[in-house]
Amino acid sequence: MDLYDEFLNRVKDIHRLSALQGHLGWDQEVLMPVKGAASRGEMMAWLAGQRHQRLVDPRLGELITALSSIDLDGDQKANLREMKRSHQQAICLPQSFVESFAQARSEALVAWQQAREQSDFQAFKPALEHLISLTRQKIDYLGVETTPYDVLLDEYEVSMKVSDYDPLFAGLKARLVPLLQSITAAQTRQEEPTLPADMRFPIDSQKAFCHNVSAAMGFDFEAGRMDASTHPFSAGLWPGDTRFTTRFDDKDPFSCLYAVMHETGHALYEQGLDQEHRYTPRGAAVSLGVHESQSRFWENQIGRTPSFWKVALPWFKQAFPDAPDWDEHTLNQIANRVEKGFIRVEADEVTYNLHVMIRYEIEKQLFNGELSVDDLPSAWNAMFKEWFGLDVPEDRLGCLQDIHWSMGAFGYFPTYTLGNLYAAQLLEAMGEEFGSIDDLIETGDWSPMLEWLRPRIHQRGSQVTPAELITDATGSAPSPEPFLRYVERKYSLLYHLA
Amino acid sequence: MDLYDEFLNRVKDIHRLSALQGHLGWDQEVLMPVKGAASRGEMMAWLAGQRHQRLVDPRLGELITALSSIDLDGDQKANLREMKRSHQQAICLPQSFVESFAQARSEALVAWQQAREQSDFQAFKPALEHLISLTRQKIDYLGVETTPYDVLLDEYEVSMKVSDYDPLFAGLKARLVPLLQSITAAQTRQEEPTLPADMRFPIDSQKAFCHNVSAAMGFDFEAGRMDASTHPFSAGLWPGDTRFTTRFDDKDPFSCLYAVMHETGHALYEQGLDQEHRYTPRGAAVSLGVHESQSRFWENQIGRTPSFWKVALPWFKQAFPDAPDWDEHTLNQIANRVEKGFIRVEADEVTYNLHVMIRYEIEKQLFNGELSVDDLPSAWNAMFKEWFGLDVPEDRLGCLQDIHWSMGAFGYFPTYTLGNLYAAQLLEAMGEEFGSIDDLIETGDWSPMLEWLRPRIHQRGSQVTPAELITDATGSAPSPEPFLRYVERKYSLLYHLA
Repeated sequence: MDLYDEFLNRVKDIHRLSALQGHLGWDQEVLMPVKGAASRGEMMAWLAGQRHQRLVDPRLGELITALSSIDLDGDQKANLREMKRSHQQAICLPQSFVESFAQARSEALVAWQQAREQSDFQAFKPALEHLISLTRQKIDYLGVETTPYDVLLDEYEVSMKVSDYDPLFAGLKARLVPLLQSITAAQTRQEEPTLPADMRFPIDSQKAFCHNVSAAMGFDFEAGRMDASTHPFSAGLWPGDTRFTTRFDDKDPFSCLYAVMHETGHALYEQGLDQEHRYTPRGAAVSLGVHESQSRFWENQIGRTPSFWKVALPWFKQAFPDAPDWDEHTLNQIANRVEKGFIRVEADEVTYNLHVMIRYEIEKQLFNGELSVDDLPSAWNAMFKEWFGLDVPEDRLGCLQDIHWSMGAFGYFPTYTLGNLYAAQLLEAMGEEFGSIDDLIETGDWSPMLEWLRPRIHQRGSQVTPAELITDATGSAPSPEPFLRYVERKYSLLYHLA
Repeated sequence: MDLYDEFLNRVKDIHRLSALQGHLGWDQEVLMPVKGAASRGEMMAWLAGQRHQRLVDPRLGELITALSSIDLDGDQKANLREMKRSHQQAICLPQSFVESFAQARSEALVAWQQAREQSDFQAFKPALEHLISLTRQKIDYLGVETTPYDVLLDEYEVSMKVSDYDPLFAGLKARLVPLLQSITAAQTRQEEPTLPADMRFPIDSQKAFCHNVSAAMGFDFEAGRMDASTHPFSAGLWPGDTRFTTRFDDKDPFSCLYAVMHETGHALYEQGLDQEHRYTPRGAAVSLGVHESQSRFWENQIGRTPSFWKVALPWFKQAFPDAPDWDEHTLNQIANRVEKGFIRVEADEVTYNLHVMIRYEIEKQLFNGELSVDDLPSAWNAMFKEWFGLDVPEDRLGCLQDIHWSMGAFGYFPTYTLGNLYAAQLLEAMGEEFGSIDDLIETGDWSPMLEWLRPRIHQRGSQVTPAELITDATGSAPSPEPFLRYVERKYSLLYHLA
């Protein structure tokens, strides 16, 4: 067998095991009966161990070395580049550690779900401490070059470090905080439409409405599913089967709608990957930041516009005939209302990145500093008070709100901000080609946008690095400027700021 | 590492792979989007290949040989016995064949679902022919000792052959056909209650009603799920997570109810396996025949009695307040109505085994004789005409009705009859201990029956052979007599036969 084919077979086996982990993960969050938790954890640990065993196989290392001096095409080079990195990381970690970590994640997820429901941080603490201590061990295994937290950041967006994020976040904060202050001032001058407190939006109608929107975005329901879970998420799984979830609140159809638009954005990326390259890095999404750019693009830049609401208005009226006779501008105002709320996933585009920054700061202190798990809730609440001026009344609305830490995903949150920045850059570039995006949205045929993204983002998989991908697609290196321009313009219009 | 531990680790890996196949199989029938079929087939093939690779590993063979001359305890001996058989079968089959077969099964399942919906045998024919030709290849690989069909029969119930089934079926037929004739004659004399044709039973109410019944049988819904699928089935999956499915027909709540009782019977077996021995043969169900005894026990011997209906009557009335004011005897008559119908899974206990025999005869002719796939529908229909006196109007009601052939499961059906026989034997033995089973059922507390089955059947897993298990549990070797006694007595009472 040809060396590259031998390498590729091994790569595919590794990715098939990841796909199985993804499938069981989806099932765990959507369907699994509670008493299945222990054996699910065991099975997840076993899969992680199997995957690790193949990743550290010395023969894979030999193949990587041998292929490094052979002339390969671009796709092959991409697979080699990504597998080299995965292999080199994996050989730092003992298999027993990988299995323990997977099992701890699976158990912590259950503990978090219960703790969150009861808003009881103490109930989550032992599992969280265990995961943090395992994560510290992982950092030691992988080796610290700069700061310990950088080791984690790099896992979720290659080569991004504290020294990159600190100034990026500082720059964002410098312009977002004044914007937030202007908006808050404007809010005292003008009344904003809200959802009537006693109004109910039946779950089945929400389902039908959101299904419409997702299908209009281009999600292929014959090659995927929409389900419900506590924390909305999407799972690529494998070709022809991409699933996402949402959640339902019968007092607020916007919560479901924007979860669906967000997750559909992710899912469109997965459905658009090049199936010829399935089960290889070349055929997989390049990074979390780029993934998040796809979800935020559809959720915010398309979904939270008057043009979107012009198209969606008849669907909304059909689904909710008892709702007030809102027009597209009122619906858009409700959808964009800036509010210093507690929940990140419900935040507007101005405060969203501040929510991310809190998590970034907490994680940085946990791994680079002195913060203990015991002090985590008070550190969170103090920072929230300082930045948002609000007292967090219970941990469910504070440090227990997100699923990530229960999955051992420390260093993940900052990629959300990257996603926001990339999305704004993509919108600008698209606008240069199509002229007014608003006019395009208003036609109700959104396929030109999807077709623009397909060859530039989706089909390229991990062909190049995230920064190269964004540069190729937009003609400019990644930068926060397009996002700041976008958000300042949008909210100036919405709140009639000077 | 101790030799047995090394063996056990390998055994568990093999069974974990089977459990993953089971999980993906469940998902495929319950949830999978249509376009996921191709990659699901690929993934199933890959898992089958992985499993096969481990099963044929020469080191496993060495361990089996080494352990054969070592003093082992009963549980260890059971694992050795079962793994020896699996290993010896597996080494006859090339891995490429195992993968092709798994892929063909997964594809045929999709073809069958569509063909059945449209009652179009031609649409299923190519996939079926492919599976049959692969199955013939498998028979060749495994080697024919007596007849080719025996090779298949042995796979589903060890050591059962045509020479066992032929006289067994002949004996059953000799007493069931006269019984059926007496019943048919009686039916001309007495009017039987039926479901009003225009009556509708809402799906949600059926769900709630069946959930009640399943819980009363002892199914732990915190360690399992009930879902819907075209063909009801149960899947053991793994500890703490046992799932079964049913189907809904808003004109007939009995269809759902008895599917639920049947599948709950299977699922109780799975929930009752000894978790200490998980992922080993010792901790797994011993055979399909014994599995079926558990489903048929609850479905028929408990579920189709006036005593059951006395308990279930208030639940029924609560779920279906618009139904006629039937008493337990009327409901029981409806549930036991003997009818020469087309569908096996809806058949009464008198005709059920005749349905099985048709499939057995067809399979025997396919593999031991001259029947071609082209002639399959006409052979089926001719036999049905001869035995039931009815013309099959479309293949959906004939040879397309069952899922088994689309799964390559040839030789499976006869185990259903074994299940009926074992179930009757268990009922007799239980009656000797408890006195009147009817009185016990009427108390509404059915846990003594489950607790009787737990140590005698469920917890023993594959400790001994099916025949030994039944003998240990009932004090007698497997025999058709208890079933014949049971069915003759039951239907004599129901139809006031002499």
